[in-house]
Amino acid sequence: MPRHLLLPLFFLLTPLLLPTLAAQDTQAEDEDAFYIRKIYDKALTEGRCYDWLRSLSTDYGRRLAGSPQAAAAVEYTKQMLDTLGLDSVWLQPCMVTHWERGEPEQVIIVNSNSRGTIDIGGLALGNSVGTGTEGMTAEVVEVFSLDELEELGREKLAGKIVFFNRPMDPKQIRTFTAYGGAVDQRVYGAARAARFGAVAVLVRSVTTSLDDVPHTGVTVYEDGTPKIPAIAVSTQDADLLHQLARQETVRVFLRATCQSFPDKLSYNVIGEIRGQSKPEEIILVGGHLDSWDVAGGAHDDGAGCAHAMDVLQIMKRLDYRPQRTLRCVLFMNEENGLKGGLEYAKVSNEQGEFHLAAIESDAGGFTPRGFTCDGEQSIFVDKFKTVIDRFHLLEPYGLSLSKGGSGADISPLKSQQGLLFGFRPDSQRYFDYHHTRNDNFDTVNKRELEMGVAAITSLVYLLDKYGTN
Amino acid sequence: MPRHLLLPLFFLLTPLLLPTLAAQDTQAEDEDAFYIRKIYDKALTEGRCYDWLRSLSTDYGRRLAGSPQAAAAVEYTKQMLDTLGLDSVWLQPCMVTHWERGEPEQVIIVNSNSRGTIDIGGLALGNSVGTGTEGMTAEVVEVFSLDELEELGREKLAGKIVFFNRPMDPKQIRTFTAYGGAVDQRVYGAARAARFGAVAVLVRSVTTSLDDVPHTGVTVYEDGTPKIPAIAVSTQDADLLHQLARQETVRVFLRATCQSFPDKLSYNVIGEIRGQSKPEEIILVGGHLDSWDVAGGAHDDGAGCAHAMDVLQIMKRLDYRPQRTLRCVLFMNEENGLKGGLEYAKVSNEQGEFHLAAIESDAGGFTPRGFTCDGEQSIFVDKFKTVIDRFHLLEPYGLSLSKGGSGADISPLKSQQGLLFGFRPDSQRYFDYHHTRNDNFDTVNKRELEMGVAAITSLVYLLDKYGTN
Repeated sequence: MPRHLLLPLFFLLTPLLLPTLAAQDTQAEDEDAFYIRKIYDKALTEGRCYDWLRSLSTDYGRRLAGSPQAAAAVEYTKQMLDTLGLDSVWLQPCMVTHWERGEPEQVIIVNSNSRGTIDIGGLALGNSVGTGTEGMTAEVVEVFSLDELEELGREKLAGKIVFFNRPMDPKQIRTFTAYGGAVDQRVYGAARAARFGAVAVLVRSVTTSLDDVPHTGVTVYEDGTPKIPAIAVSTQDADLLHQLARQETVRVFLRATCQSFPDKLSYNVIGEIRGQSKPEEIILVGGHLDSWDVAGGAHDDGAGCAHAMDVLQIMKRLDYRPQRTLRCVLFMNEENGLKGGLEYAKVSNEQGEFHLAAIESDAGGFTPRGFTCDGEQSIFVDKFKTVIDRFHLLEPYGLSLSKGGSGADISPLKSQQGLLFGFRPDSQRYFDYHHTRNDNFDTVNKRELEMGVAAITSLVYLLDKYGTN
Repeated sequence: MPRHLLLPLFFLLTPLLLPTLAAQDTQAEDEDAFYIRKIYDKALTEGRCYDWLRSLSTDYGRRLAGSPQAAAAVEYTKQMLDTLGLDSVWLQPCMVTHWERGEPEQVIIVNSNSRGTIDIGGLALGNSVGTGTEGMTAEVVEVFSLDELEELGREKLAGKIVFFNRPMDPKQIRTFTAYGGAVDQRVYGAARAARFGAVAVLVRSVTTSLDDVPHTGVTVYEDGTPKIPAIAVSTQDADLLHQLARQETVRVFLRATCQSFPDKLSYNVIGEIRGQSKPEEIILVGGHLDSWDVAGGAHDDGAGCAHAMDVLQIMKRLDYRPQRTLRCVLFMNEENGLKGGLEYAKVSNEQGEFHLAAIESDAGGFTPRGFTCDGEQSIFVDKFKTVIDRFHLLEPYGLSLSKGGSGADISPLKSQQGLLFGFRPDSQRYFDYHHTRNDNFDTVNKRELEMGVAAITSLVYLLDKYGTN
């Protein structure tokens, strides 16, 4: 294995580290380094994540909560976990959101003087209401923020289609930061515009790409204001609308037949290896099993499920006997309800469980760059000092640890005061595929996916070995 | 911009750094951090690399040295450099290798008892001789290393087709390391097998993928032994040959009409911004303009050329006035002759030039991970201490510095005792495309490419500002 010596660091740290590391620490570190290397070897030669993800995103794609495909994915992943020789595998019931897209959406610019009628198409946002089967036509008002709605007020917005068009900031290095800076329009745009009498919203797709692919994603209504249809348009079409709207009054015809139904019974899929000396301390690895209904959900979040399952598979292959309980959880309904994550935490709390740590993989199957660590500094610095101190053993594998969010599904576990991690792969390509028809298996690289398993398994190893101080 | 605080590092370094950094150093560092952020902003919003690469790999693909496409690429890139307002742009003549593939190769298993005749196809290695228009048929002998030839000897190899089948090691984290461990078969296999009377060689494609795509690449003959045809087969076909060869005698028909011609006049394409205070110290950024003849050469090495040109473009846009001379060099004939790189160093030495530093981008247009630094420790530690000390300013952008090779084209500059760097993007996908029909523009992500420009420009900035101690 090539060790990429970080030159300046080396020169700085050498005098600092050598005198302070006791001999036994050095030996323990050598053992850890050796075991982590074994984990990587195994994951890169005997991983099953890639084959699982192929099935999950081709045979069981479009796994929106409440759909037949989601039910099939529950069965498939449970069967796969059943093959691993775990101590237990079970389904945890939960009632999930049930929303259906209906017929393909229509978004047609009907009265552009300069270009005539233009059929631009779009994708209804998840949980959006429909337009009625006849559709609706109204004038478009372009805005760039939620706050701008207040400025314009009911006078300018009542009866209109509000078009949210603030792009993601291309200058952000992590695309997730840019996503966070733009996604409020998609999540809250419809609810906020409805306060002022808007009849529908169009939303610029939240992506770093300039292309003709619309990106869906959840929208959230608020009590007391009407639910109005919300539809995403591609970034190219958003640019077109922008150009037209600057020159003339633009009227758009919208039609979407999406509908919400009563919550439906579904399941989180769970498997675990029971800890030998401290079984009551749980280390969770997870992803979400549901995906949007427009593609295979390969990166979002088939990859996370394949990661989580393969972590246990690799541990079994290594015949690793954990001190603590290692649990893989495939959460249902993250995309448009988070019902699986909420139910999991509720049951866990009721049973008095303690999650020492939880790691969520929900950022794609790309080359690992590290982990973000959520929670109070007092937790990770004081309680997990040994693990954090050992994290440098993962640096030769290109991994770093930074402060940040963990994952939607595991966030409800925060009250248990464990350590919550988000797995952080390279983020540059993620929003090319996210929530689109293109999030399919062909965009996943086998090695990149396997390296994710190795990275997460290595962190699990350190957490299991050192736990809290 | 999100700063990803490396927790353990932070706690270790804080007490060490604070007392030792003089106030003026801190201020200089702040200025540098600010300027590097400006470079990233510019590269991520006003880069031209992606559009240049689109042309280079679609309009001017298959740019093998000596080809009409290579001549067109010389003109195109010179024209693009001419638009940048550089101080000078010129073509540097060099005589280059001229080899042509001829008609599509045939590789047919002719007498497998178990499977009948199987047409598996292949790609002649660069500079390979042909088989003659009638082709040839011979028995296949599978080996896994050059050394194994010695063991088998002339008795077992004379008249045979030697099939080199050692795969790349999937356990290596950097795929280039694994490539280095397998490529000897492709480069030296034909020459070494010919010593023992073999009539041709087949070589397992040097890739981390298991697929049906053959990978070409140069083979090198030796004086005094016959030149025999050398053809790459896909990894799937290599596995098939392996299975058959274990069961029975396998005979294969080969036909390749490739041919070498006398060296031909071509050019390195060069542009520079002249340094204001130390023009005699050159900082070079480069890639190679030629590609293999089977695809667009998008990652290998259109990306490197687009990087190098865009570094100067970004510097001009920032109105940066370098102390030292910043030179972009697009080398010709790296793939099957290195004639451009050798000529460049020869002319440079004749003119008594000094390259303070050279950075080659020839590892694809993927997300940057850092740089490898070639040369004696005495050079980079003693002579370039300030630059190395400042490198940590690039860490927030996911970049690290490690010891390693630089690049084939700039290696001949080593005698000038400057600092040679290899740009190091993420390597996991590179060998999926390398030297194949799939190395095309659609495999390049715009942001990943632009981040490469930003990374290289930032290093150039530090080198220009601090030079040698």
